[in-house]
Amino acid sequence: MPRVCVTRRVHFSAAHRLHRSEWSEERNREVFGDCANVNWHGHNYELDVTVEGEVDPETGYVLDLKLLKRLVERSVVDDLDHRNLNLDVPWLEEKNPTTENLVVAIWDRLVSRMPEGLELKRLVLFETPRNSVEYEGR
Amino acid sequence: MPRVCVTRRVHFSAAHRLHRSEWSEERNREVFGDCANVNWHGHNYELDVTVEGEVDPETGYVLDLKLLKRLVERSVVDDLDHRNLNLDVPWLEEKNPTTENLVVAIWDRLVSRMPEGLELKRLVLFETPRNSVEYEGR
Amino acid sequence: MPRVCVTRRVHFSAAHRLHRSEWSEERNREVFGDCANVNWHGHNYELDVTVEGEVDPETGYVLDLKLLKRLVERSVVDDLDHRNLNLDVPWLEEKNPTTENLVVAIWDRLVSRMPEGLELKRLVLFETPRNSVEYEGR
Amino acid sequence: MPRVCVTRRVHFSAAHRLHRSEWSEERNREVFGDCANVNWHGHNYELDVTVEGEVDPETGYVLDLKLLKRLVERSVVDDLDHRNLNLDVPWLEEKNPTTENLVVAIWDRLVSRMPEGLELKRLVLFETPRNSVEYEGR
Amino acid sequence: MPRVCVTRRVHFSAAHRLHRSEWSEERNREVFGDCANVNWHGHNYELDVTVEGEVDPETGYVLDLKLLKRLVERSVVDDLDHRNLNLDVPWLEEKNPTTENLVVAIWDRLVSRMPEGLELKRLVLFETPRNSVEYEGR
Amino acid sequence: MPRVCVTRRVHFSAAHRLHRSEWSEERNREVFGDCANVNWHGHNYELDVTVEGEVDPETGYVLDLKLLKRLVERSVVDDLDHRNLNLDVPWLEEKNPTTENLVVAIWDRLVSRMPEGLELKRLVLFETPRNSVEYEGR
Repeated sequence: MPRVCVTRRVHFSAAHRLHRSEWSEERNREVFGDCANVNWHGHNYELDVTVEGEVDPETGYVLDLKLLKRLVERSVVDDLDHRNLNLDVPWLEEKNPTTENLVVAIWDRLVSRMPEGLELKRLVLFETPRNSVEYEGR
Repeated sequence: MPRVCVTRRVHFSAAHRLHRSEWSEERNREVFGDCANVNWHGHNYELDVTVEGEVDPETGYVLDLKLLKRLVERSVVDDLDHRNLNLDVPWLEEKNPTTENLVVAIWDRLVSRMPEGLELKRLVLFETPRNSVEYEGR
Repeated sequence: MPRVCVTRRVHFSAAHRLHRSEWSEERNREVFGDCANVNWHGHNYELDVTVEGEVDPETGYVLDLKLLKRLVERSVVDDLDHRNLNLDVPWLEEKNPTTENLVVAIWDRLVSRMPEGLELKRLVLFETPRNSVEYEGR
Repeated sequence: MPRVCVTRRVHFSAAHRLHRSEWSEERNREVFGDCANVNWHGHNYELDVTVEGEVDPETGYVLDLKLLKRLVERSVVDDLDHRNLNLDVPWLEEKNPTTENLVVAIWDRLVSRMPEGLELKRLVLFETPRNSVEYEGR
Repeated sequence: MPRVCVTRRVHFSAAHRLHRSEWSEERNREVFGDCANVNWHGHNYELDVTVEGEVDPETGYVLDLKLLKRLVERSVVDDLDHRNLNLDVPWLEEKNPTTENLVVAIWDRLVSRMPEGLELKRLVLFETPRNSVEYEGR
Repeated sequence: MPRVCVTRRVHFSAAHRLHRSEWSEERNREVFGDCANVNWHGHNYELDVTVEGEVDPETGYVLDLKLLKRLVERSVVDDLDHRNLNLDVPWLEEKNPTTENLVVAIWDRLVSRMPEGLELKRLVLFETPRNSVEYEGR
């Protein structure tokens, strides 16, 4: 059977700031610029979750996109949407919430929850329409 | 001379929460839902600023869009981008930063700074690609 | 209090064909071209619903966009999404489902359901990203 | 019968420069900046053409969007696409091709070609996704 | 010579339903949900066709995108646009028209029609802006 | 440490024409169609620059996107924006400015300027929203 990638785009809105607690505010401001603003800032994130697998000859699906949407919402989006990435998310604790660290943490949440026979292939995370990161678990 | 509207789109990323300080957290949560999250959340905002005026017969411009961009950045965007709308912006103080209140406050900043002969016509402010407000100063 | 317009974008996917039952297939094909295809075709529709009202001084809302979303879903989207506009929708019965007829029928559904003090201002309905109609109830 | 606006989006790619031939290159560069570049530059333009009229009770159309598309292509796009706005377009001759002058000239081409009973309502012309002008014939 | 991928995006609007004729309506509804609606529904599909090859040192093209557009229209789009994917398309017969089955069938149409020296590299097919599939012929 | 790709999108507007100086105008017109227009035409280009590297355990960055933006602007965009690709750009001299030749020339500019430890991974260059090329340096 042919192997096809299916992608579902989900979104969430969150606050964050970039900083390392062991650094001074001056050092944080120097390295992270406006992103270190003490009182936070925020973004509308868009996340493309891509799963690869064989097309099921009976249903014609790799997987039902409604299931993928639900899985991503329960494992990831419900914890992130309308939250503070530095303060509110247990599985981001002690991480500086750069887009890079965020995409790797999301990967680690999703990869262990993949239905049998399916491979988490790629995540693309947009922080703004012009800034994005891509991770394939390597 | 013909009257033409010119529009410049600008963007900013900010944190906020919806709440009234004189209400309990329970009441705030009841009215504003997830938007009341104590630790904030945030958005990528897009703002369309529309100015109407006669086409200058010499330049063919209503106004130079680079000037409009600079005016909006200095009067509005520099104060909002990578900031907390509840804590960091003097001209939003004591306002609940709903998109409605935000667009009216931006209007009040811009309308008094219009170059002579030009009319601030319309603001459209997107909080997400699916949620927006529009204000014409009435 | 200032009057602000708030807009929520919703979407639905539906099948339809353009035809008049009292015309022959030849006449339908002549007037409506490919859109008359006997076995239907379909679209992803996007609908912008704009409501105007005064900003509530207590909440800072014209209306809660979650309420508007729910109202539009219950009154309109639930009846249209994943349906056939010619066969499945009681309130479109005996109408040729052009985008024009569709936007007027949606208006008639929504205008009577507006919360007190709010005015249904404008509907914009996209049949494709390049083709749209706009209706203000006149 | 209800009055509905229908909009068709068309696009064209063109070269231009902003300059007045009676000014020196220095003066042109001073007023128009990079847009005065002697060797031209160019854009992908998007044009939204909006026509208002009553819904025809027989067809359910204000007008067939295929007809509108063809009318706009023949009257406007065929003359502009893959052309130089300063050199190649008879109806732009002696005009400085700012977006403002361009939208007014397009209006003048289209308004006299409207089918009976239909009103050219609004043109929106995007020079870039962030810069646009709007004209209603006033 | 460098190897470059060139991509052309095309679109088509079609009706379909997901179902297996050997299953009961109940079973189809259970597995495919609203997508099994007996009277069909539909979508605006967007298809990105990517072809890889060496840059021709004479023309600077991998291939003329106008040729690619024409090839895809003749081989694929003309058969799908404003059609019913279950009923009107000989090369989809007896296939359940999921996005996965559709992208594989389109691949099989295109791969045998590639001009000499060019490799069909990747297809991305969007059923909605948030749901897509990707196929590389494996 | 995980390897992540980071992408920054930049844009520029430029004029060009496709032609080979050793060919007659007739031959150029025959091969390149409207793109050979003697008086040029132009586009809004969008360029996605993707860089791969390990996430820095101290900052959580692969690289600061502001640095990437600045590097791309200085090496590429400042030379191309509001310019003529055939006449104004020393590093495109004697190249026919097809999108394919342009993306390869941009790659050659950027690959030698990558900060240590980072790999230029992929360029995607859009000439229009529907036409793009992709290059990975092979």
